[in-house]
Amino acid sequence: MSQGAILVLSGPSGAGKSTIISAASGQIGEYYFSISTTTRSPREGEVDGRDYFFVSKESFEEDIKAGNFLEYAQVHGNYYGTSLKPVREALDAGKLVIFDIDVQGHRLVRAKLNDITTSAFITPPTLGVLKSRLHARETDDASVIAKRIENAKGEIMALGEYDFTIINDSVEEATRRFVIIANAARLKQSHALQEEFVKQWLALD
Amino acid sequence: MSQGAILVLSGPSGAGKSTIISAASGQIGEYYFSISTTTRSPREGEVDGRDYFFVSKESFEEDIKAGNFLEYAQVHGNYYGTSLKPVREALDAGKLVIFDIDVQGHRLVRAKLNDITTSAFITPPTLGVLKSRLHARETDDASVIAKRIENAKGEIMALGEYDFTIINDSVEEATRRFVIIANAARLKQSHALQEEFVKQWLALD
Repeated sequence: MSQGAILVLSGPSGAGKSTIISAASGQIGEYYFSISTTTRSPREGEVDGRDYFFVSKESFEEDIKAGNFLEYAQVHGNYYGTSLKPVREALDAGKLVIFDIDVQGHRLVRAKLNDITTSAFITPPTLGVLKSRLHARETDDASVIAKRIENAKGEIMALGEYDFTIINDSVEEATRRFVIIANAARLKQSHALQEEFVKQWLALD
Repeated sequence: MSQGAILVLSGPSGAGKSTIISAASGQIGEYYFSISTTTRSPREGEVDGRDYFFVSKESFEEDIKAGNFLEYAQVHGNYYGTSLKPVREALDAGKLVIFDIDVQGHRLVRAKLNDITTSAFITPPTLGVLKSRLHARETDDASVIAKRIENAKGEIMALGEYDFTIINDSVEEATRRFVIIANAARLKQSHALQEEFVKQWLALD
């Protein structure tokens, strides 16, 4: 029994998700970090195919019609979504597919691929710490920070929908927990595979 | 956020559960292996308080009435059950509580403590291997082995109800997987604890 599995990570911008994934890399086996597709314009420093796949609104809407998205949403007039194709390819290759998506995206992935999905909500220890981190980064202006904080307050309410909470107080401890969760996530099996195994199990008597 | 959690193990007699737990011991932190209570008589070599708590039918039925069991069932005229008290104590001490119970017991634990429960079904790779192992043990007579095999055929059908399947083909690999699952199980949090965390998180702004 071998196949890929999914690990959904959510949590506010400033929770330290990328830092933790980088720190854990090398301890969690082969994985594919899912890159979202968006119709918004690239920001300074963003690279197509690394940060996002940047596409036109027309192309995105064609893919919606063709059923090519695992999940998608419209935020402030822009589309964001996850294309099915690279995810399917990574799963078929037996990889762990890691998603960094929001609460709504998590619900959509669960609805479609619940049996092979594990999820973790990564958060700074308190709202106060989140605020300090966002201000310290000095990358966003006050209105963007205010919006991120409002989003975070909304998203934390969905904590109970996740399999695990990772409180990023110390990066070392958060990474240690992330490694355990990612390695367990990889051991999840699809119902189809389980049924196949049971059939074989009974036949090989 | 710290509290205990539950790991339910099921699988046929002969799957190698005890061997795996022994081999993993020392790599999975502090745990309490739940000991069942039964009204059947001790078999040769069985020790009260190690293999089972052996009690009278009257005592068992009083405990049922008093709501002292997390789960119990009657099998071939004998009662088997898990007392709540030692489990509660272990959970309060922040331990991982490991249960070796059947499919029906798993359902009852899930019904009561789903949010802190992880489960794994441990099985030999095929029914044929199970048969060979049971015959090789030479501890049971033919009718007991036949009954175990019939039970196993029934229980494997419930594989899909478990979070994980551990195929015990190699003890080393099965133990490696068990360690990952047990360590992840420990990171599960109760809904009550999550709600408390969210409240605190928003307050500490």
